[in-house]
Amino acid sequence: MNKAILLEKRPVGKPKLSDFKFVSNKIEEISTGELLLKTTYVSVDPYLRGRMSDAKSYIPPFELHKPISSGIIAEVIDSKNPAFTKGDFVSGMLAWKEFQKSNGEGLLKVDATRAPLSTYLGVLGMTGLTAYLGLTEIGKPKKGETIVVSGAAGAVGSIVGQIGKILGCRVIGIAGSDEKTALLKSKFGFDEAINYNTTKNMAAAIKEAAPNGVDIYFDNVGGPISDAVLLNINQFARFIICGAISLYNNTELPKSMSVQPFLVKNSALMQGFIVFNYAEKYAEAIAQLSIWLAEGKLTSAETISEGFDTIPQAFLDLFEGKNSGKMLVKI
Amino acid sequence: MNKAILLEKRPVGKPKLSDFKFVSNKIEEISTGELLLKTTYVSVDPYLRGRMSDAKSYIPPFELHKPISSGIIAEVIDSKNPAFTKGDFVSGMLAWKEFQKSNGEGLLKVDATRAPLSTYLGVLGMTGLTAYLGLTEIGKPKKGETIVVSGAAGAVGSIVGQIGKILGCRVIGIAGSDEKTALLKSKFGFDEAINYNTTKNMAAAIKEAAPNGVDIYFDNVGGPISDAVLLNINQFARFIICGAISLYNNTELPKSMSVQPFLVKNSALMQGFIVFNYAEKYAEAIAQLSIWLAEGKLTSAETISEGFDTIPQAFLDLFEGKNSGKMLVKI
Repeated sequence: MNKAILLEKRPVGKPKLSDFKFVSNKIEEISTGELLLKTTYVSVDPYLRGRMSDAKSYIPPFELHKPISSGIIAEVIDSKNPAFTKGDFVSGMLAWKEFQKSNGEGLLKVDATRAPLSTYLGVLGMTGLTAYLGLTEIGKPKKGETIVVSGAAGAVGSIVGQIGKILGCRVIGIAGSDEKTALLKSKFGFDEAINYNTTKNMAAAIKEAAPNGVDIYFDNVGGPISDAVLLNINQFARFIICGAISLYNNTELPKSMSVQPFLVKNSALMQGFIVFNYAEKYAEAIAQLSIWLAEGKLTSAETISEGFDTIPQAFLDLFEGKNSGKMLVKI
Repeated sequence: MNKAILLEKRPVGKPKLSDFKFVSNKIEEISTGELLLKTTYVSVDPYLRGRMSDAKSYIPPFELHKPISSGIIAEVIDSKNPAFTKGDFVSGMLAWKEFQKSNGEGLLKVDATRAPLSTYLGVLGMTGLTAYLGLTEIGKPKKGETIVVSGAAGAVGSIVGQIGKILGCRVIGIAGSDEKTALLKSKFGFDEAINYNTTKNMAAAIKEAAPNGVDIYFDNVGGPISDAVLLNINQFARFIICGAISLYNNTELPKSMSVQPFLVKNSALMQGFIVFNYAEKYAEAIAQLSIWLAEGKLTSAETISEGFDTIPQAFLDLFEGKNSGKMLVKI
């Protein structure tokens, strides 16, 4: 049989297990030009929360009672498409199903001998692209500048910090536990790390960690943490607004410090970043990330949950900050 | 005698007349290389409020017990500097004094025969430069796009709207009285105008005036008006944050709707704009503005207060929205 996970209800506030529904169907037959895929790794990401709501956004919402989709690595187990052979591994935006057919469109072959398969959902996938292109295209870091990263122990944040160090910047990470802040310094090479759950005055802590002020803020969270960074920005500061996980489950429009006076005073910039708008830079970015990975300059971190049935819970765990690095489910 | 206006106290919240002090001194003697100036027009601007506070900003705060300075047109009434002749008119950042000496540095000669003198503080001065460069450098308007301007009947706003129309955009102005909104449509050619003082649901009013959504927002005010615009932005929207007059007199850090989720969803940009950062573009901008002015495509509007003693009150009136167009004091 072939299990699939459907969006049963649009979550209100924080998503719950009951918003998802497991169903079982027969494995589909493939026709000429099609291939049959067996899911190997499933990426669960904060941005999926947005697609579960029925609101205008950069990608259409998921349909109710249909399978959810996300970044997936799958094995080709049967092929009637000359471009793919049984035994190939591919990455793509695929459905949360154990098995599914495809016409091959939008699938990229990935090489399990060059890097671990999961890497193609992490450093060498959308996660790495988001970190690299967000930081370089909007942040435009210059050697010696100070970068603050929120959600720093997360998939994107941990890579942003490492790239910041490679580019010669001072990097400060903000995360939610002492374990994570320790990891940021020991494993990912951040200069300073701040635990927002135990720090009373975040603005003062950022000031202490960034004595020359903040030039670039890679924002994955929004909310009070971002307010505290705003109090410490330099002239011409750049804010890459990559996510706002702290605000995604709000049921009312959240309020924060008014950003306008800070932006005017400092001629500063805030820009929403969606990696899909930079597709023409993917090849160049992956080439650079592959070099750094091969040189050992980039470390990838993963939190892996085991088993198809754990996908919904792994997704919910993102909002509790239970992951370090990329959150994946291995099937 | 020679009157001057000093900053007596740093305003707390809304500035008061008692924050200013008039003093009288003798007119200074000039030495070789210097010239004596008689003030003709004084520009009073919202951004001066920022300089009255003792806070880090893009220009240093005014010193207590020293004359305030702003954009001024003055007549050369005596000169020991070969670059200037008695009878010349100049513009520059000068002190709030009836008479003052200068070594000529930073002064630009202006031609009273080409355009009315006051124009050099308005359309052909910092005001016009701010409107033109803010809109074109950050807003990058494309024909057919929709622009919303707040503080639309103010000095900068009324020019932004007219330039938007010249560039083929749909332009919606937001102002604080029916007189002003009528003026926006009749005199400045805005397509729609909204009175925020009589409109209960600003977000709905903007949606109605901008059925295709908002591509560019030229923000002079911040606060709830800007929140309402944010609810109506299109993908890749650009917010030029030129001022935040609604927030300047706050004594606590003001709160607004969190902007981050909107910026992410729409890949939108918000950038603080200070005209001084674009000095290399002044000549090109003034050339363009002069052409439009000569062609009758740009109308300048001024609210003129008469007499040196009225300068502080004219400044206070800005925060009550008593001006239409550029607020000036004629001496």
